[in-house]
Amino acid sequence: MLSKSQISFLKSLQIKKNRREHGLFLVEGYKSVIEFVNSTYQTEAVYHTADIAPKVLNLSQKKISLHQISSNDLERISTLTTPQHVVALVRIPQRPLLTYADLKQKFSLVLDGIQDPGNLGTIIRTADWFGIQDIICSEDTVEAYNPKVVQASMGSLARVKVSYVDLAKQLEKIDMPVYGALLDGESIYETSFEKEGLVLMGNEGNGIRPDIQKLITKAVTIPRVGKAESLNVAIATALFCSEINRK
Amino acid sequence: MLSKSQISFLKSLQIKKNRREHGLFLVEGYKSVIEFVNSTYQTEAVYHTADIAPKVLNLSQKKISLHQISSNDLERISTLTTPQHVVALVRIPQRPLLTYADLKQKFSLVLDGIQDPGNLGTIIRTADWFGIQDIICSEDTVEAYNPKVVQASMGSLARVKVSYVDLAKQLEKIDMPVYGALLDGESIYETSFEKEGLVLMGNEGNGIRPDIQKLITKAVTIPRVGKAESLNVAIATALFCSEINRK
Repeated sequence: MLSKSQISFLKSLQIKKNRREHGLFLVEGYKSVIEFVNSTYQTEAVYHTADIAPKVLNLSQKKISLHQISSNDLERISTLTTPQHVVALVRIPQRPLLTYADLKQKFSLVLDGIQDPGNLGTIIRTADWFGIQDIICSEDTVEAYNPKVVQASMGSLARVKVSYVDLAKQLEKIDMPVYGALLDGESIYETSFEKEGLVLMGNEGNGIRPDIQKLITKAVTIPRVGKAESLNVAIATALFCSEINRK
Repeated sequence: MLSKSQISFLKSLQIKKNRREHGLFLVEGYKSVIEFVNSTYQTEAVYHTADIAPKVLNLSQKKISLHQISSNDLERISTLTTPQHVVALVRIPQRPLLTYADLKQKFSLVLDGIQDPGNLGTIIRTADWFGIQDIICSEDTVEAYNPKVVQASMGSLARVKVSYVDLAKQLEKIDMPVYGALLDGESIYETSFEKEGLVLMGNEGNGIRPDIQKLITKAVTIPRVGKAESLNVAIATALFCSEINRK
């Protein structure tokens, strides 16, 4: 049984300001909760309904505060239309500023102003599939601990590191090839990707901002055969990840 | 000004049963409306607020019934949190059953039980980018005229033909290579795609049903480098479209 103030506190974490203030966010669903519990994230508490108690119990070895709650309470703290039996309260990690040493000899993603939480979540999941460990976001990119991002990442947020930085300032310091997704670049099928680099994707409607475009060392395009005006940004990101992977 | 019964009729089209009964659906937003008006779809009416009247007026050459409505009325008939000034009432086309003649010498997509409207909309948009003209869906795949599908397709639904068929029955009659996205197939990077074929994608959680898997002539896998359990189905579909396109 949760008290009114506990419910109100957990619900308050649906708002970014409150997540920032408390340094906490929620993860929903058994699979995702398990991924976070078994990750470097610090899980503070797990709230579960009676129907999955046996499964959740083995978490107790990890010294996580466990609370059995009613389905009614779960519905109150959940953001899902169909709540998934379990919610974890997880600490937002403090990430040190990324340096070249963190990024060398591999590929990382850079996102300039992605707004849609479903897109960011899908990008995190896709990055995880292709073994990409770091996603560097502009400060105005949708927050990775937004409930819809967490949901769409399907647990991959537990593994892929998402950082928020002043892109113009930080990228200047990192001397690596920067592949920018633009409409007038070299065909992605003909691009020879180096052994390391950054893949830069822009906002859903406006693309990459001019001051960030300046950092691009190679403009790359996904050739269009048909008539759609653009590709979804998560789709475009996946095509970059796949091309890098195949080479 | 819309009457109560007009508003109630237009709102009723948010439900599949009513779309089926009346053979009509709604398209929202200027760009998408323009795509439908300039397509083979039959647009019955366009409802717009005063703020975009000048832009919409040139539609009148097409003998489409034009209605200026209040922002309040627009909000009532819109499914969007931020309604986009214009809504079109469009007729659902009757599609003849696809035969080999419709599909030969090109690639088409086959979807077995896709449930998420955002995924189907993104698949339609991606197909349009890669010049794929036909998407063949199992009867239980989410309906293409669902408002969220229409929205996510970003106007591409006006060009890409989406058909609903008894997959097991219809695919048997079409003698073409069937590339199925499975976890234990040949690497997509090593697959030599023929000049024509079907790309078969399965449900978000359960994949391709066993009786549909039987129709696969080549099982294909997107190699995983990292740890995500799966890829989003729209992402996986895009990677197939891109690989076919690059060859």
